[in-house]
Amino acid sequence: MADPIITLTTDFGESAPYVAAMKGVILGINPQARILDLSHQIPPQDVQHAAFFLQNAIPYFPPAVIHVVVVDPGVGTDRALLYVEVDGHRLLVPDNGCWTRLPCTDPSGRRVLRLTEAGYWRSPVSATFHGRDILAPVAGHLSLGVDARKLGVPVESWVQLDVASPELSLDRLRGEIAFVDQFGNLITNIPGEALQSMPVHRRLVHVGDRSILPVWVKTYAEAAAGTLVGLVSSAGMVEIAVNQGSAAERLGAGVGAAVELTVRGENG
Amino acid sequence: MADPIITLTTDFGESAPYVAAMKGVILGINPQARILDLSHQIPPQDVQHAAFFLQNAIPYFPPAVIHVVVVDPGVGTDRALLYVEVDGHRLLVPDNGCWTRLPCTDPSGRRVLRLTEAGYWRSPVSATFHGRDILAPVAGHLSLGVDARKLGVPVESWVQLDVASPELSLDRLRGEIAFVDQFGNLITNIPGEALQSMPVHRRLVHVGDRSILPVWVKTYAEAAAGTLVGLVSSAGMVEIAVNQGSAAERLGAGVGAAVELTVRGENG
Amino acid sequence: MADPIITLTTDFGESAPYVAAMKGVILGINPQARILDLSHQIPPQDVQHAAFFLQNAIPYFPPAVIHVVVVDPGVGTDRALLYVEVDGHRLLVPDNGCWTRLPCTDPSGRRVLRLTEAGYWRSPVSATFHGRDILAPVAGHLSLGVDARKLGVPVESWVQLDVASPELSLDRLRGEIAFVDQFGNLITNIPGEALQSMPVHRRLVHVGDRSILPVWVKTYAEAAAGTLVGLVSSAGMVEIAVNQGSAAERLGAGVGAAVELTVRGENG
Repeated sequence: MADPIITLTTDFGESAPYVAAMKGVILGINPQARILDLSHQIPPQDVQHAAFFLQNAIPYFPPAVIHVVVVDPGVGTDRALLYVEVDGHRLLVPDNGCWTRLPCTDPSGRRVLRLTEAGYWRSPVSATFHGRDILAPVAGHLSLGVDARKLGVPVESWVQLDVASPELSLDRLRGEIAFVDQFGNLITNIPGEALQSMPVHRRLVHVGDRSILPVWVKTYAEAAAGTLVGLVSSAGMVEIAVNQGSAAERLGAGVGAAVELTVRGENG
Repeated sequence: MADPIITLTTDFGESAPYVAAMKGVILGINPQARILDLSHQIPPQDVQHAAFFLQNAIPYFPPAVIHVVVVDPGVGTDRALLYVEVDGHRLLVPDNGCWTRLPCTDPSGRRVLRLTEAGYWRSPVSATFHGRDILAPVAGHLSLGVDARKLGVPVESWVQLDVASPELSLDRLRGEIAFVDQFGNLITNIPGEALQSMPVHRRLVHVGDRSILPVWVKTYAEAAAGTLVGLVSSAGMVEIAVNQGSAAERLGAGVGAAVELTVRGENG
Repeated sequence: MADPIITLTTDFGESAPYVAAMKGVILGINPQARILDLSHQIPPQDVQHAAFFLQNAIPYFPPAVIHVVVVDPGVGTDRALLYVEVDGHRLLVPDNGCWTRLPCTDPSGRRVLRLTEAGYWRSPVSATFHGRDILAPVAGHLSLGVDARKLGVPVESWVQLDVASPELSLDRLRGEIAFVDQFGNLITNIPGEALQSMPVHRRLVHVGDRSILPVWVKTYAEAAAGTLVGLVSSAGMVEIAVNQGSAAERLGAGVGAAVELTVRGENG
């Protein structure tokens, strides 16, 4: 049988010793746990970014993996820490909504527990580093086969992240930029299928205070270098990009900026 | 039995091939070694930063792990490379003091060897990359079970890092900023217990040329966003922070800046 | 037997979910695969940088390892994806030349296949993320022992990276800066042996529009802090550095800048 896998997603960066301390705690409990970094570059305390990240990463993993997430502006307050099972994926997270964008095709199989059993924690627990003192040791014990039901008590409600929903009609799509990646690609919250009713050469895109007519492509390199392109992202969303360049820089736009697609008049 | 674990802590960053080369060398000697990144973002050649990092990371690991540290401004000179055992932790380090802040509760169990047995090294050894040519292969051999005593000769002295000690009295605490993390939290070298003699609402904090009266909290989110707070860090030290902001930016202060706590007059 | 190892080298950074998605896909196919990050900080779409990185990293690995490389400005176009075996190393790469600087001591043992067998891919395949949809699943299947010959069809030609060759004579060496590392060290494409014909104290180095007489050393710390030094890099190339400083900053020079070494007149 494969050794159990524990992934880590944090906003700790790498220059501070926080991630390393968590790895030590996990291995102190289960030296056979295989630890996998997903990211330590979530922008500090950016729960929305973490939610987008998890939504686009966790579904690709097989079910047995344990995912620890520490993006936790409320650390030390009375916000709960949760054990979550959703579509077979297992997460240990602060109750701040970071996991609520994960797809849940079978709500009846969802299980959410508030972590309460301090016997699985480090002692004493610091007020500012629950990743090290609670989540890492709980992950270590889970990876040893501890039954999740022993970790705490079931809860029926939790913080839901406020997610902007796009407004979609046949000739007008309104949404926003949900994510900007390291290439400067602007990924919106507008599903790619919504484009189908709009004639491809007349799709006018308004981003912030700019209006553009991107070239619609399947992939970046179909257009000349430097060209503003529109496409459907690898996660199925409308995306604005610049081949071999940065759309974020070109358009001066970032996460949260309004995006609207309309149909230009035929002689426009 | 679990596969042996080797951790890496360097100032190499990730864009250069140096870390990858070390991983290749280790796996070439022991393909079953499990390699774990602690950090490759130690600021270049910053031995003090490395020392703080190791002090706050290594103690959480179980003893069997092998820790390789390459922050090595003296590479290629006659500075020694060391095998160190301290409180059961095993490190391979340049002799520049980076490990000397690690707690040592049992000095009689400490073992320090100068690496001299070139049979465990790559050949030839370059003058500028001992991480790849000496430390990585020695770690590989150690992980195969080679007795550490075969690696070199015992030494009784080594470079001690000059660590600033705080001056503590009942009404005045003098120290400095020892670390700034990625949130901009300022972690001092003043132990949290030293605060006990000072009335909580009258603790005046001088950082650089600024004097502030932070709100004293157990954790960041007890105060409103943007508030300057004082607290005891997850490692037990006095820390100055801004809830959901950066104290480093707000106060224009960084590592080494003087910090002084005094008691404000009751009518001050 | 050791679990199979898959390394990842990308230009994805860590803040986006792309690397994590690839890890999930691999583990979904082979939960026992051990995933090792080489770098996710290749500068975006910089195939030359990737080529230098691989040339200086892959040769240190043992042969059984599978290396996945995703620096892929042509994703989604008709550029091929390749399985490559060179000197026993196994790579999965876009056909953009990123692997062609790897040493090949035995061309008869080289095997290059174009990936065509979609049965080993995710379905559907997106137009913009072949790392997740093709390379990661193929790596997973390879790590399970699938015969590489089943993955596609042999090809006899591939994109060769245009690599600048230095011009070397006894009294004049012309080349360029091939790499700048995180210390600001300037690594040229001029082999260190070429220096032998030039008297050490008369080696004049022209970098961009600057002419310097560096101190020639075996390692950085032989010279005083701040001194411009010349040396032979850990990979055997002429390197210009500043002890405890950045030669890139001092000389305002970066990748591609012309470097010329000449012999200064004895009374010069």
